[in-house]
Amino acid sequence: MNVPAVWSEDFARVIRAALVENLPIGPGAEAHLQAGINVLGARPGKLVRARLVLGTTLAHGVDPQAGVALATAIEYFHLASLLLDDLPCMDDATTRRGQPCLHRMHGEATAILTALAFINRAYALVGFGLASQPVAVRLQAQACLDASLGWAGLIGGQAHDLRFAESDRSARTVSRIALAKTGTLFSVGLIFPALLARPEREERRALEALCLYWSLAFQALDDMQDVLATSVDAGKTTGRDRTLSRPNLAVVLGIPPTRRRIVRLLGQSARQIQRLTRVRPAWAYLEQFQQYFVDAAAPVAGDASASAA
Amino acid sequence: MNVPAVWSEDFARVIRAALVENLPIGPGAEAHLQAGINVLGARPGKLVRARLVLGTTLAHGVDPQAGVALATAIEYFHLASLLLDDLPCMDDATTRRGQPCLHRMHGEATAILTALAFINRAYALVGFGLASQPVAVRLQAQACLDASLGWAGLIGGQAHDLRFAESDRSARTVSRIALAKTGTLFSVGLIFPALLARPEREERRALEALCLYWSLAFQALDDMQDVLATSVDAGKTTGRDRTLSRPNLAVVLGIPPTRRRIVRLLGQSARQIQRLTRVRPAWAYLEQFQQYFVDAAAPVAGDASASAA
Repeated sequence: MNVPAVWSEDFARVIRAALVENLPIGPGAEAHLQAGINVLGARPGKLVRARLVLGTTLAHGVDPQAGVALATAIEYFHLASLLLDDLPCMDDATTRRGQPCLHRMHGEATAILTALAFINRAYALVGFGLASQPVAVRLQAQACLDASLGWAGLIGGQAHDLRFAESDRSARTVSRIALAKTGTLFSVGLIFPALLARPEREERRALEALCLYWSLAFQALDDMQDVLATSVDAGKTTGRDRTLSRPNLAVVLGIPPTRRRIVRLLGQSARQIQRLTRVRPAWAYLEQFQQYFVDAAAPVAGDASASAA
Repeated sequence: MNVPAVWSEDFARVIRAALVENLPIGPGAEAHLQAGINVLGARPGKLVRARLVLGTTLAHGVDPQAGVALATAIEYFHLASLLLDDLPCMDDATTRRGQPCLHRMHGEATAILTALAFINRAYALVGFGLASQPVAVRLQAQACLDASLGWAGLIGGQAHDLRFAESDRSARTVSRIALAKTGTLFSVGLIFPALLARPEREERRALEALCLYWSLAFQALDDMQDVLATSVDAGKTTGRDRTLSRPNLAVVLGIPPTRRRIVRLLGQSARQIQRLTRVRPAWAYLEQFQQYFVDAAAPVAGDASASAA
């Protein structure tokens, strides 16, 4: 059984090389667009989603070239969503990954066009990555992307997010919006590539539950960081949720209940991974991501690993 | 030989029904996003690109369901490009298709998210429309979309457009930018679906030349209208090019030389269609589009049909 070491430097190097190689730019490109795309390409984040996609495809024996293309695509979608979320008409952020936001350096139009260039290239890579799949798998994977990124997923979540002030502002609404936003980027990172492994009904259910728990835990953690951290530590604009009346679980529930919720969610995600590996041992690579989330939660949530084990 | 009547009401009805049926919206969607998408769906334009895509696929015997999906996709890309072009940070337009621009009614964030929802759905429809094609055709068609819409095409053209004031402002630069913008929407409307007919080298060259001449003629016409027409007649904000230092051939060359250029371009496009029908009679449906452009040019360019014949 091939278990890819998803947090190894070798693994990251493969992804980073593909992110640079496929950048949607070339000779004669408009100077600001070129600058914007290169800046983004030079500052990769933690690559959680790309590692998840590549890990999933490799663990299930998909052609590595196709897996790398799909991983790159998902990371480009993520980059585009960050660029657009930061715009003045959206979250009005000033810094991202420790640098001024792209729209602060090259203007809003360049930020929008850069995001579109990443989205366009991402879809080309999706087409390439799926090219040798049977038609049924291709259609399923495309439908998954459509649902995850579209009006019922990422785009719709952002729309609800911006109108949060007009909602009931309950913890339930906060979770629903978090699910539409972070949740769909996770379902694109995990369920989308998992479709190439042709999961059975039981696996499909466990994967969906796993995405649900990871997404809610991830978003709750992000909310805690927005409340607790300073902009310098986080590398992005923080404390904006309260200012902008944006959904934030730590604001709605308070810190200790949010902490307990994170621990509980990570326990539930660990159980879904056990459920998956009982059906097919190849899912064992997911434990590496579970451990990553447990470690990431430790500073704010205490030692979550005890309950998550 | 099947020659679709591309300007018939029946033809338009099929396209309009598909545009409504595939709208990227459903129950539970955020209210502003829902309103934005429905407004756009209720106001279809002349559907030139969708008619071109559906006409091309039907003339070459592609499954009608796939043809309708591809036609809908290209129209959604076009809708998204209009929404984004109208934004304050782009062309800062106030009206479109005789109504206030979407960002004036529902805010910039909604306009951006609506555009993204159309782009996302468009790619899903492309995947569906190409699903039964052999892998080589799919890869070619995807590469065509990537090149036509990306940094070297529509997105790059818009980036250059916005920085026109920083350029040499020559007629050559104006044409180059027009080609990157209108030209690539035409190549998506004609070359993209034509790939499904597996064109030979001679056909491919003639198709590319045809796109070039139509695009330049179309853009020159649009530039004339921006200079000559009032906003009320055009149904969109006009006279903006000069105000915003945007590339406009009629501003750079003057009205009479632009008029002569349009007549010459339409003569050249007519010859490309003759070249195509000599190789394959199925290309004859293109004459209907040629006639449409000749008729559209008549009020500003005089009787162009004499030279175009």
